[in-house]
Amino acid sequence: MSIVNKRRKTRQISIGNIKIGSDSPITVQSMTNTPTQNVQTTVNQILDLEKAGCEIIRVAVPDIKAALAIAKIKQKISIPVIADIHFDYRLAIASAKAGADGLRINPGNIGNQKNIKLVVDCAKEHKIPIRIGVNAGSLEKKIEKRLGITAEAMVESALVNIKILEDLHFHDIKVSLKASDVSRTVKAYKLLASKTDVPFHIGVTEAGGLYAGITKSAIGIGMLLAQGLGDTLRVSLTRDPVEEIRTGYEILRALGIRSRGPELISCPTCGRCKIDLFKIVQDTEKALLERSSKIKVAIMGCVVNGPGEAKEADIGIAGGDGKGILFKKGKIIRKIDQDDLVEQLLNEIDNIEKMEKPNGKKE
Amino acid sequence: MSIVNKRRKTRQISIGNIKIGSDSPITVQSMTNTPTQNVQTTVNQILDLEKAGCEIIRVAVPDIKAALAIAKIKQKISIPVIADIHFDYRLAIASAKAGADGLRINPGNIGNQKNIKLVVDCAKEHKIPIRIGVNAGSLEKKIEKRLGITAEAMVESALVNIKILEDLHFHDIKVSLKASDVSRTVKAYKLLASKTDVPFHIGVTEAGGLYAGITKSAIGIGMLLAQGLGDTLRVSLTRDPVEEIRTGYEILRALGIRSRGPELISCPTCGRCKIDLFKIVQDTEKALLERSSKIKVAIMGCVVNGPGEAKEADIGIAGGDGKGILFKKGKIIRKIDQDDLVEQLLNEIDNIEKMEKPNGKKE
Repeated sequence: MSIVNKRRKTRQISIGNIKIGSDSPITVQSMTNTPTQNVQTTVNQILDLEKAGCEIIRVAVPDIKAALAIAKIKQKISIPVIADIHFDYRLAIASAKAGADGLRINPGNIGNQKNIKLVVDCAKEHKIPIRIGVNAGSLEKKIEKRLGITAEAMVESALVNIKILEDLHFHDIKVSLKASDVSRTVKAYKLLASKTDVPFHIGVTEAGGLYAGITKSAIGIGMLLAQGLGDTLRVSLTRDPVEEIRTGYEILRALGIRSRGPELISCPTCGRCKIDLFKIVQDTEKALLERSSKIKVAIMGCVVNGPGEAKEADIGIAGGDGKGILFKKGKIIRKIDQDDLVEQLLNEIDNIEKMEKPNGKKE
Repeated sequence: MSIVNKRRKTRQISIGNIKIGSDSPITVQSMTNTPTQNVQTTVNQILDLEKAGCEIIRVAVPDIKAALAIAKIKQKISIPVIADIHFDYRLAIASAKAGADGLRINPGNIGNQKNIKLVVDCAKEHKIPIRIGVNAGSLEKKIEKRLGITAEAMVESALVNIKILEDLHFHDIKVSLKASDVSRTVKAYKLLASKTDVPFHIGVTEAGGLYAGITKSAIGIGMLLAQGLGDTLRVSLTRDPVEEIRTGYEILRALGIRSRGPELISCPTCGRCKIDLFKIVQDTEKALLERSSKIKVAIMGCVVNGPGEAKEADIGIAGGDGKGILFKKGKIIRKIDQDDLVEQLLNEIDNIEKMEKPNGKKE
């Protein structure tokens, strides 16, 4: 029994060298929040995101300067760039000419069918896909008036626009259906799933800050993935976009779909804990961010339960009174002073990673 | 179409004045991480948790001092207390005598059936329920040897122990089946659901730090709740337990099951944003924590999309260049300087809350 259903069958599209849909990996993407025309600042953010595992980056294109900046940005980064277009179809065309690997248009505000045709012609010429990015908050007025701000209206908007593109013999499409609540978001994707084989870009929009944002994204994206829906994902947080990437991978890992870097499990501590576990966990979490091995690390509050409860971890520490013990696969190795715990744990992880590298078993 | 299935039918138990199971609200609980015998420190943490909405609190009872402290702690707090017992059944008995409103025992380490009978006799005498708290990491050796550290083994442990208690004519039971991964946790509850009508305490154990912890808890608890499983929940984070409560309510809100306090939606910002939205969101998020009204607040990065995308919010702000606009239900009210945005937003929220109080409509 798996908790994740078989993945929905979709057509496959390419954004630069990244494939989306069919049996390609479910990719993790983000969006910059720097002014796009500010090339160096934007490049720096994208490089940070690449390091965190971001596989596709989207940039806002509010004006022609931003569109032109795409050419310069692309010279300095490795991942494909999607131009995010609202209102003005001409910016889509300028972005494609500047080398964007994909276009995102919002059918609710891009204007009439004639504008869409011009964007499609341009996308065809540059061989780049278009995301139909439906947002509950900005539906076509006609559809909203008839169906309200509902999942059904979002699906109708998507279907109308897929048809417009396909009638123009353009099939290089993905779709997103985002609302700021989990319920409409999940419903909309479920409703659309059987009506088209277009791959899905999934996410909950305007999810919010730390707790609400991660929670809503994890539940919404998680429920969709568990139902086999979703080909690329973006977690939306009012935070540094690097945190979106981390959360995205945590969602994929939690469902056993993909993993990236070490897994850290840690207990919440309780009245039995006699060391500063929160700090130890935070320091270790930070240090592990740069690692790529798939080692499982446990950090537990007490010696009594710790190693036993974490016996499936490759390595771990369990807190004692001002001290901790190091354990491997649940077996106690040695005692360590509290102040040296993180350093020695990381050294041991180094050793395991080195031993594992030659045969590439875990990398 | 709801994304949440009908709730599983269960028997109902009471922990102090809080009902668990059947049609009672799905409650949010946490566990202190202070030394329980340190009464004032523990009371202070519980009072913070009460303020955040914690409805049941669990305390570790590693020794007799901790058990005796329960009597003093209970005098100063309002919510029921559960004593968390490992290894030594005598501490369960001492806790019950000290006034604990419930006991949590770990069947994997509480010892033989004779010990369990003594705990049951005591719980009967004091009319308090017992949680059978199965943890994947500390299963009974016999069961683990035969079935491995699997969901099936967790379910078997639960069923064996439910039978021991029920053979002693004790029915005041809830069960938890926690693993440190979402997959086994969800599978175990699903497997057990049809085999007993005992209410479920749900959660993912040792979920970890901020990103992994919230993500795993949100997906695991979220998937269970969406399937109608779960009568009380605990989010487990290696963080201040107040954050566990916040995350717990965010999970319930995301699924439309229960809500507490204002809802804040906010956009992730992009290259269009020209104010420091992250800080505005963090300040507002913090200020709203103490509020109890169910107002919906939106904080959006740009004037162009903001009010439109957030037209379902009761009130919100959208960033401009060093300024912001205040809007209500998507309609623009007035411009405000960036530095005054949060204060004026909170004032407006005050006004809405005052207007709504007389008829109690939204509280």
